[in-house]
Amino acid sequence: MSDRLDDLLTRRAAHTSPTLSILYGKDPIHVVRGSGQYLYDADGREYLDCMNNVPHVGHSHPKVTEAASKQLALVNTNTRFVYEGLVDYAEQLASTLPAGLEVCYFVNSGSEANELALRLARAHTKRRGAVVLDGAYHGNTTTLIEHSPYKFDGRGGGGRPGYVQVAPTPDPYRGKHRGPGSGESYGREVAGAFERASASAHPPALLLAESLLGTAGQIEPPAGFLASAYQAARAAGAVVIADEVQIGFGRVGTHFWAFDAQGVVPDIVTLGKPIGNGYPLGAVVTTAEIAASFHNGMEYFNTFGGAPVSCAVGLAVLDVLEREGLQAGALEVGQYLRAAFLNLGKSRPVIGDVRGSGLFLGVELVLDRDSPEPATRLTADLIRYLREHAILASSDGPDNNVLKIKPPLPFSRGDADRLIESVDTFLGLQAE
Amino acid sequence: MSDRLDDLLTRRAAHTSPTLSILYGKDPIHVVRGSGQYLYDADGREYLDCMNNVPHVGHSHPKVTEAASKQLALVNTNTRFVYEGLVDYAEQLASTLPAGLEVCYFVNSGSEANELALRLARAHTKRRGAVVLDGAYHGNTTTLIEHSPYKFDGRGGGGRPGYVQVAPTPDPYRGKHRGPGSGESYGREVAGAFERASASAHPPALLLAESLLGTAGQIEPPAGFLASAYQAARAAGAVVIADEVQIGFGRVGTHFWAFDAQGVVPDIVTLGKPIGNGYPLGAVVTTAEIAASFHNGMEYFNTFGGAPVSCAVGLAVLDVLEREGLQAGALEVGQYLRAAFLNLGKSRPVIGDVRGSGLFLGVELVLDRDSPEPATRLTADLIRYLREHAILASSDGPDNNVLKIKPPLPFSRGDADRLIESVDTFLGLQAE
Repeated sequence: MSDRLDDLLTRRAAHTSPTLSILYGKDPIHVVRGSGQYLYDADGREYLDCMNNVPHVGHSHPKVTEAASKQLALVNTNTRFVYEGLVDYAEQLASTLPAGLEVCYFVNSGSEANELALRLARAHTKRRGAVVLDGAYHGNTTTLIEHSPYKFDGRGGGGRPGYVQVAPTPDPYRGKHRGPGSGESYGREVAGAFERASASAHPPALLLAESLLGTAGQIEPPAGFLASAYQAARAAGAVVIADEVQIGFGRVGTHFWAFDAQGVVPDIVTLGKPIGNGYPLGAVVTTAEIAASFHNGMEYFNTFGGAPVSCAVGLAVLDVLEREGLQAGALEVGQYLRAAFLNLGKSRPVIGDVRGSGLFLGVELVLDRDSPEPATRLTADLIRYLREHAILASSDGPDNNVLKIKPPLPFSRGDADRLIESVDTFLGLQAE
Repeated sequence: MSDRLDDLLTRRAAHTSPTLSILYGKDPIHVVRGSGQYLYDADGREYLDCMNNVPHVGHSHPKVTEAASKQLALVNTNTRFVYEGLVDYAEQLASTLPAGLEVCYFVNSGSEANELALRLARAHTKRRGAVVLDGAYHGNTTTLIEHSPYKFDGRGGGGRPGYVQVAPTPDPYRGKHRGPGSGESYGREVAGAFERASASAHPPALLLAESLLGTAGQIEPPAGFLASAYQAARAAGAVVIADEVQIGFGRVGTHFWAFDAQGVVPDIVTLGKPIGNGYPLGAVVTTAEIAASFHNGMEYFNTFGGAPVSCAVGLAVLDVLEREGLQAGALEVGQYLRAAFLNLGKSRPVIGDVRGSGLFLGVELVLDRDSPEPATRLTADLIRYLREHAILASSDGPDNNVLKIKPPLPFSRGDADRLIESVDTFLGLQAE
């Protein structure tokens, strides 16, 4: 480690929280520049970024920078004034969603979006109970941690609150029900959670679920799952919140929204990370009916939410996505990369499962394919090896044995080849 | 209203929430540009801005725009990487605070800051109970609304939750105890609230209080109040959170932080609105001891909080504040304006009270100075008259009879004269 970096870490430790983690513990990256799917450190080294989904259209995309800079120089006020940007962005955003999802609220993060979504659902149903999926993370506020098994059952967590019911992770590889036909079985588990909620002191207001699961281990729910889960929610009088913070906005390739891939329509959609390409931006979109229930006399004001600069940035991201065909690119490169990992699995038996859609992929590493013990240590070694070879990737899942791939969307076939080659080389070294 | 604005409002209504209010109902302002303490509408009309405290160093300050634009073009990643901006900003921010307040957490809004502060206080005390001041607003999340009498006792509110105790607004003009010597009396009210909390099922974790009160009506607590309130909190085993989201960062003129004006030091300080001059930025600063209690194994991660652009903006705002001597300006112009309002009160008996510090002032309008019935209608008429004369100001307080003055800090003596003249003219017309 350079003296300069060492000094920076010492100063950082003095004035920031010890809960603030740093990637690659002993060998952190001192980032100074980013472009497309690449990050550059203070020594000028280039890293292929396979982990950052927030710079959705590419690090420091010039069109996004330009839009933000131009609007910052003009004015940045709040929604109590009238300006074009808010209206244009709300219209554009609503146009990407199924008919009926038409009322937009703008906030500053995915956490603020999920917080507001819970308020909408509670106001609409006049209830408080919730059903969530095991392993899920929905945000860093007190209430959202109470809806996040990943947190309340994790280190330092306070356990499940009585008003929240948890359904099993719909994981067709390692979960309670397995195989591609397990969607309905997992749907029945959600129905069971709603039965528990309805029988409790906290009848259910909502189902809160990612359409593809992030922290639970890049899980793609089996076909039919969302349809039967949504049906169970509605039968119990609850509304459905689709958390698309991680996986919306074209990343899954086949569709703009991940819920679309299973042919369902939620009642509330929450957006965050990618929609501002790094600018603090989040949104909630819902129906006119739910918006009317929330309009009970209490104003909802968000100081920065929907400000002119936020809207200019949001519009620029949508524009770049379309002009550069990034959803189609995510589909094509994602299918190529997924196929390459499946092919690699033929010669590398530690590859237990390859899953996901577009540029939201998970590669699960196991000790032995027939009895899939998680290869947690091997996964950590792989992440470190990749970092030494200037490729940034992360792991996730309850056993931290899932290689998580969610790069900026400009990620190319050439980048995919480079990633595959490095993983293959690493696994070859391990097998020797 | 122009056809263009009319069209904009129709389109806005179709895709944004009905809870999103618009200033000056029938005569809203279509903002297109801002500079210093001025906003400009689509017809090129210039408005003197006496209401927006968020553009703290002036609308679209070129140095802040430059810093944001430069960093946006370089890279905007997250705190799991290492970069100078985070460290520089944390050091600079900590240097503005009393010794001991040294660990910084960066978030995206004042709501996120107060949310995190509650989590810190609860983790440190292992308790949940809270004491807040009547009329206060602390943010828009579920938990913060439960700490905001302005919301839970207001329209659409659900009432006071059992774990929250409310002490009276320390208002020496209209409140339960009156006169400049009422600080200790209000302090005893806070002690009483802590006694109720300690005797309840929810022993107190915290006191959450603005150092000057915004939504409660621009209240400057009488001398000695904060000291006795903080003492009561600590005697009950609670920690003190100073909400400086509205009033910190030099606005009060005499001090950089409003709590400093009463010679007290909180355990946790929360920051928001002005620190990013409109860029979505908030922060929490606390002691190493409280930060250690929060470090219980659960990671606190905030995707955008403390990102390179956020830190570049935060640093630029601090730099402009200092270079342009804006705190000293707030003191000088604020004293001038306050004196002018007091002077105006001699000839205009509807001016019941003039209060506040620096450029955070409140002018309370009453029907009759001896029996101060709130002049709610007159205040609304004044706000509308000022808007017609291109001056933007707002009202607040439980009776909406307090003219609220919190302009961008470049606000000058000339601007003060213009405001005073308009208020005088309006009151003269009313008296005729």
